Amino acid sequence: MPALTTQERDRHLPELEAAGWTVAEDGASIAKTYKFKTFPMAFGFMTRAALYAEKWDHHPDWSNTYNTVAVQLSTHDIGGLSDLDVKLAKKMDELA
Amino acid sequence: MPALTTQERDRHLPELEAAGWTVAEDGASIAKTYKFKTFPMAFGFMTRAALYAEKWDHHPDWSNTYNTVAVQLSTHDIGGLSDLDVKLAKKMDELA
Repeated sequence: MPALTTQERDRHLPELEAAGWTVAEDGASIAKTYKFKTFPMAFGFMTRAALYAEKWDHHPDWSNTYNTVAVQLSTHDIGGLSDLDVKLAKKMDELA
Repeated sequence: MPALTTQERDRHLPELEAAGWTVAEDGASIAKTYKFKTFPMAFGFMTRAALYAEKWDHHPDWSNTYNTVAVQLSTHDIGGLSDLDVKLAKKMDELA
């Protein structure tokens, strides 16, 4: 899984930022915090996202406190962002 | 939900510490990190624990990175530990 090229970053990252994702200062990860009404809604989101994470063998770093889920995505093998991060970020937004 | 009394802390906390839980320096929370073989096993544990958390209306602060689940328990209403933390900690150990 190659790192996103400069052109790919320019194409994808502004779109993700517009959707509430934050690009880390070092450019190697993206993060977003989702807030739901209840714990079942928050954990239900995590469960749906977990199925895709496993299917794509690309797993988030994430934490949950009651109705909040904080997600960080990075492609650890390359120490940066790849297509898989963009794909999982968009899927999570769709599921949330 | 009242805070654990000194006697209750003396009864329960050593047992939890023997099972790998750490009591925070301020005594107001307990924490444990579980390690599993795979992401599905880690997330499966979270899913089982989530059902009890919701049933008992007592929710963990927890994070997951691949096969690792880091849990922190506290009773936020009282700013400390209650029976619910002991109960959920023991249930999590049983489920893990």
